[in-house]
Amino acid sequence: MLEIKESVFADNEREAQRLREALLRKKIFLLNLMASPGAGKTTLLTRTIEALGNEMRIGVMEADIDSDVDARTVAKTGVKVIQLHTGGMCHLDADMTRQGLEGLGTDDLDLVILENVGNLVCPAEFDTGASKNAMILSVPEGDDKPLKYPLMFSVSDVLIINKMDAIGIFDFDFEVCAQRAKKINPDIRIIPVSAKTGEGIDEWADWLRASVRQWRNG
Amino acid sequence: MLEIKESVFADNEREAQRLREALLRKKIFLLNLMASPGAGKTTLLTRTIEALGNEMRIGVMEADIDSDVDARTVAKTGVKVIQLHTGGMCHLDADMTRQGLEGLGTDDLDLVILENVGNLVCPAEFDTGASKNAMILSVPEGDDKPLKYPLMFSVSDVLIINKMDAIGIFDFDFEVCAQRAKKINPDIRIIPVSAKTGEGIDEWADWLRASVRQWRNG
Repeated sequence: MLEIKESVFADNEREAQRLREALLRKKIFLLNLMASPGAGKTTLLTRTIEALGNEMRIGVMEADIDSDVDARTVAKTGVKVIQLHTGGMCHLDADMTRQGLEGLGTDDLDLVILENVGNLVCPAEFDTGASKNAMILSVPEGDDKPLKYPLMFSVSDVLIINKMDAIGIFDFDFEVCAQRAKKINPDIRIIPVSAKTGEGIDEWADWLRASVRQWRNG
Repeated sequence: MLEIKESVFADNEREAQRLREALLRKKIFLLNLMASPGAGKTTLLTRTIEALGNEMRIGVMEADIDSDVDARTVAKTGVKVIQLHTGGMCHLDADMTRQGLEGLGTDDLDLVILENVGNLVCPAEFDTGASKNAMILSVPEGDDKPLKYPLMFSVSDVLIINKMDAIGIFDFDFEVCAQRAKKINPDIRIIPVSAKTGEGIDEWADWLRASVRQWRNG
């Protein structure tokens, strides 16, 4: 458990760039995972550890307002995990992320996954210094979310559409949602999954594996 | 469409109290409706207008980062509606709410519903001056949300648990969720609904009707 404070006066963009370069020198890939509350971040994280845990040394930082529910869930997978309390803040900035990495200890890690605060607004505004940004949109949230939270879609490298197993009972048009996301961010990679059933996890793991390899090769 | 700005220096609590008293003098009930993105705020709003539109004069303020999707949906019901753009801000404060009410025009209204920004963090921190706070938690988000976003549950007078029609396919224990919410806020009223099928809307409309009546009687 680590209590972190926002460095109000830091230039976040500069701090983020500095952190990204430091991570690259150490060959550590930092994934910033963002989503609404309840979209399935922790379940996807657990699936990701199952899929890649044998080939990479993974660490996890769980950002939460003030609980440690998710950190305890992730700890069961056996990977190194640290809980970051934001003290009511709705996002992490680069300096808070750096404090978290120091607390976690990264010398023996290849991949660190930051589970950001459950929120589609604030986390999109602060570069954490991550190597790549991933966001989850879950089917029950609706296919109109790219229209309403465009910044989140524009800063994400990959859009994971989760709870695909429930698509039959919700008014969610996958193609319409994908078009809306691509209109905001033509380069975004879109991967449909069900973290619950395991559907699509291979494709997600392939994307993450390739991104880590590309990063490590500079 | 109205662009609103945050009054950085205002004492929000004082401003909220002043607004609440002014609304009471004019016998206008302001409901602040909060939830995650995609929990069903707009659908519940439409159902509420169907249920109470014949007995009360209703106005709606739609707060959004920068779209007007919801305002256009609500406008189809025939009630007076205004879109508030927060310009990236993750919540409304009392002064922004006051600006919105002035833009909407309240002289001919009994009930104004503010659909706050889709977010379980920031809106909980700012008293808008509302007569009552309502929050929606939807079944797919999970029954652990009271543990993770306790402030939202502590400031809400009523918790609407939406998408009850989907409870069969999600790991959501209604009783566990209700206990967790009551532990944080023993006075919270909990109403299970499906805004999609109409289940539970009568109970919600009864609560809102009684709250408006009690408010108008001082």
